[in-house]
Amino acid sequence: MEQPAGTGEQRDVVSCFSRDFNKMTAFEELGALARAPYDLTASGALSPERIRSYRTHAAGFDLLYATQRVDDTVLAALQKLAEESGAVSQFMLMKKGAVLNRIEGYPSEERQVLHTACRDIFAPDSLAPEATGQAKAELDKLADFLAALEAGGIVNGAGDSFTDLVQVGIGGSDLGPRALYLALAAYKIPGRRVHFISNVDPDDAAAILNGLDLARTLVNVVSKSGSTLETLTNEELVRKAFAEAGLEPNRHFLAVTGKGSPMDNPARYLRSFYMFDSIGGRYSATSMVGAVMLGFGLGYAHLEEILRGANAMDLAAEVPDIRRNPPLLLALLGIWNHNFLGSETLAILPYSQALVRFTAHLQQCDMESNGKSVTRQGKSLAWKSGPIIWGEPGTNGQHAFYQLIHQGTAIVPAEFIGFRASQYGQDLLIEQTTSQEKLVANLLAQALALATGQPHENPNRCFAGNRPSVVLLADRLTPYSMGALLALYEAKVVFQGFIWNINSFDQEGVQLGKKLATRLLAHYAGRRKNSGYNGEVSDDSGWALLVAAGILAK
Amino acid sequence: MEQPAGTGEQRDVVSCFSRDFNKMTAFEELGALARAPYDLTASGALSPERIRSYRTHAAGFDLLYATQRVDDTVLAALQKLAEESGAVSQFMLMKKGAVLNRIEGYPSEERQVLHTACRDIFAPDSLAPEATGQAKAELDKLADFLAALEAGGIVNGAGDSFTDLVQVGIGGSDLGPRALYLALAAYKIPGRRVHFISNVDPDDAAAILNGLDLARTLVNVVSKSGSTLETLTNEELVRKAFAEAGLEPNRHFLAVTGKGSPMDNPARYLRSFYMFDSIGGRYSATSMVGAVMLGFGLGYAHLEEILRGANAMDLAAEVPDIRRNPPLLLALLGIWNHNFLGSETLAILPYSQALVRFTAHLQQCDMESNGKSVTRQGKSLAWKSGPIIWGEPGTNGQHAFYQLIHQGTAIVPAEFIGFRASQYGQDLLIEQTTSQEKLVANLLAQALALATGQPHENPNRCFAGNRPSVVLLADRLTPYSMGALLALYEAKVVFQGFIWNINSFDQEGVQLGKKLATRLLAHYAGRRKNSGYNGEVSDDSGWALLVAAGILAK
Repeated sequence: MEQPAGTGEQRDVVSCFSRDFNKMTAFEELGALARAPYDLTASGALSPERIRSYRTHAAGFDLLYATQRVDDTVLAALQKLAEESGAVSQFMLMKKGAVLNRIEGYPSEERQVLHTACRDIFAPDSLAPEATGQAKAELDKLADFLAALEAGGIVNGAGDSFTDLVQVGIGGSDLGPRALYLALAAYKIPGRRVHFISNVDPDDAAAILNGLDLARTLVNVVSKSGSTLETLTNEELVRKAFAEAGLEPNRHFLAVTGKGSPMDNPARYLRSFYMFDSIGGRYSATSMVGAVMLGFGLGYAHLEEILRGANAMDLAAEVPDIRRNPPLLLALLGIWNHNFLGSETLAILPYSQALVRFTAHLQQCDMESNGKSVTRQGKSLAWKSGPIIWGEPGTNGQHAFYQLIHQGTAIVPAEFIGFRASQYGQDLLIEQTTSQEKLVANLLAQALALATGQPHENPNRCFAGNRPSVVLLADRLTPYSMGALLALYEAKVVFQGFIWNINSFDQEGVQLGKKLATRLLAHYAGRRKNSGYNGEVSDDSGWALLVAAGILAK
Repeated sequence: MEQPAGTGEQRDVVSCFSRDFNKMTAFEELGALARAPYDLTASGALSPERIRSYRTHAAGFDLLYATQRVDDTVLAALQKLAEESGAVSQFMLMKKGAVLNRIEGYPSEERQVLHTACRDIFAPDSLAPEATGQAKAELDKLADFLAALEAGGIVNGAGDSFTDLVQVGIGGSDLGPRALYLALAAYKIPGRRVHFISNVDPDDAAAILNGLDLARTLVNVVSKSGSTLETLTNEELVRKAFAEAGLEPNRHFLAVTGKGSPMDNPARYLRSFYMFDSIGGRYSATSMVGAVMLGFGLGYAHLEEILRGANAMDLAAEVPDIRRNPPLLLALLGIWNHNFLGSETLAILPYSQALVRFTAHLQQCDMESNGKSVTRQGKSLAWKSGPIIWGEPGTNGQHAFYQLIHQGTAIVPAEFIGFRASQYGQDLLIEQTTSQEKLVANLLAQALALATGQPHENPNRCFAGNRPSVVLLADRLTPYSMGALLALYEAKVVFQGFIWNINSFDQEGVQLGKKLATRLLAHYAGRRKNSGYNGEVSDDSGWALLVAAGILAK
């Protein structure tokens, strides 16, 4: 099932673009420029011309960046940084199947990075024909399956259709798909609902199962390796509930997994859909990991619109001019704020309740990709890699943590996301404005207030300003614009990784905790075999066992 | 309705404890100690004795802090910092009604801070008898109301009982109450459900109302001032839905508001419950702001248990010895990591899906309180105030952003929260361990992995360690322990504010954005009065209007 590991030319891509971030001439230039960044609080600093010209557009999204601490000189240096690091060239090679998931000279995953191929299905020719062919084959299987559900060809043991689907997965098999489904719930097929079980917390699964008619519920179990502990544990919990209800699991359970994994077993699943090694979990929302659930919940046509929007943004990411490439520009503005102006975090603030889980998805996509300490040659980084990503939907956030963003001692760059019209269209004029207008007005007002600040004779009512933000604005949150937004951030993260010369596609940092947890669980299991064990976890036993196991003493 | 502004002695509390953080002798000592903090990666650094002795307990929670970069010398200096800043003395004066919400010499809110009085109802004598008396009076009103609902004395127009309640509020009227309800959903009264509408996003309200039988739904509108724009907008949206369903709003709508506010109007509400100026929004979850909804959803007895747990932690916060006072110790460890070891953020990581919104509540409680730039004398801070708070429940987080926590270039101190037994008790043995054991094992393993790290010949599999964390562990997530956890963090935040010499009880930083939004909305409204307006918000109009209004040009 594995794809070929790329041509020789593609294999060498890591070496040929691996320049130390701090050795580029643009790095030095930007360092000098950062000593006197553009002053957004100066009189006239936010002129109408600046607002009009510091703006770009792709795939339905405007990116407004007048409220960043940049001028044309800084933008030129950022353009140079993009070129020196070969950001767009590497992106193109990625789309063509270069083996970018590797660390030179050390054992590493040695994989291609082909999430873009999942949606490169609209043009006659894809940049990565084999991966796109695989993606299309799975989409065709899915379309057939969904049509059979619709037509009554696939039903439960009593001949009823399915109304609910529970997605069982964790990490990338949960966050991206869940964020998309919640964002697009306004588009769902009437009478169908999707639910998610992810945490190993037994209360999580119990709370969801308690509200369901299992007889009419499909369960979609998602794990590439087919061995993710939390997912298998939750699958067993759910299978037990089906067994207790007297239902045949293989009429209800679907699998999304790697071909040949322990879960690729027709005896246990009604259908299996495949995911491939060239698609990392946190980039997998547009693969079968998200598609099966989205197809069931929203219908195949809406799923295709998501892919279409993502593909449009992937194409926009190929443009070399940073002022016409929103993902690349966003990546560079992030680097300016993080590496040159010294901010440690980035707030993602969607002014749309439907995007309630989008920030959580980006936390994974960004922090798991770029929370790294070594270069692609295995050297310790002498510069900061990825920021901490956090945020909540506005205007809720305004009534919560915005105090710190405006008046705290840390500078928090912000990325606002908004829409000109609402999804449902149920709105109300109060004092001559609609709720959607209030939402957009608040978003714009926050960007301005952060930038310009305000002097005041009462020091407690003073706003220092010069707090940078961007505004991402689209007409409406649709399947197409959601796909574009997802791909915008995926490409941004990848560009930053290229520029920092890190591998944005592995996640070795999650291994140590996993290893220690496994050792601790072995002790719990051993203890259970002895008599007198009362079934409760005591912290004494846990910590004492860790000590006894030599883990604490190293 | 206002409480007296405190005695003369209490009024002077701000002056008498206002020492600059960086002028205390402990500040200098800690600065010197921070040059060589305790090395958690050294052989034997995490000895069983250390784990046993770096542990304290209150109100059902263990606080384990062996995995912090502290030793007895640092703890002694932190004890001194607590004493020099008068942290516990100020806490006692706060509980007695001192006017701590003020900035000396400048117009400010000039209020008492008496959220602790809401739960100081169990001992014969309260420290703040008047505030406690008010709290008790409201609780009695609530108990009567809930009993009448139960007994059928209060019903809808058709004589049916109420099954659902929608809480309409934002910020503190939403985050804390919602976090508590979700945490304790396992304890809810069968057949009753609570829902929340907070964002001004019209899609949010529409999605919730679409799923409800309005005839059997109560609506609890919460706004201290009775003039919160988002809340009034949402209330109108909901009232419109009731009117369209032919229902009488004043049989369904409840108000929680300040006495005498525009919302204190018996003609429009079935019942009004009062909140008082001495309780800030972000500290109001145990006042009527949370109590009405919790009483309806969980029953009065469970509500009382929440208050009992909170009160127990408030009492623990009075202990002068930092090693026997979990909230104070947590505050000081936070200051050690933030001000002396240089971390900008703090991750709150509950290993319980039920705590899914607790971190969002803490974001408000902490960041709105301590995201400040001036002292209580109005001087610019020469030291960092509150950190950025973020996090998600584990083990989900492990599959998302933990990569950065383990191997990123920023150090992220973490606070893990866990429970020895599950809430529902539906658990399953897989490979001889339960899901709850897996949860606890993962939590402990993460704390250890972050602390000790791991050398490796592959630099990409190396873990530097020395990443500090604490573990908060209780037997089970119950109403009592939830109350205790809430109060633990409230007290922690207040202690940090006292030590940094900032006013943790105002929120001037939210005003500028509000003001600019109001001005922008005035333009939208004006535009609507002209002909040809099509109802859609265009960013052009928005930004151009801002320019025309002179806001951009300052």
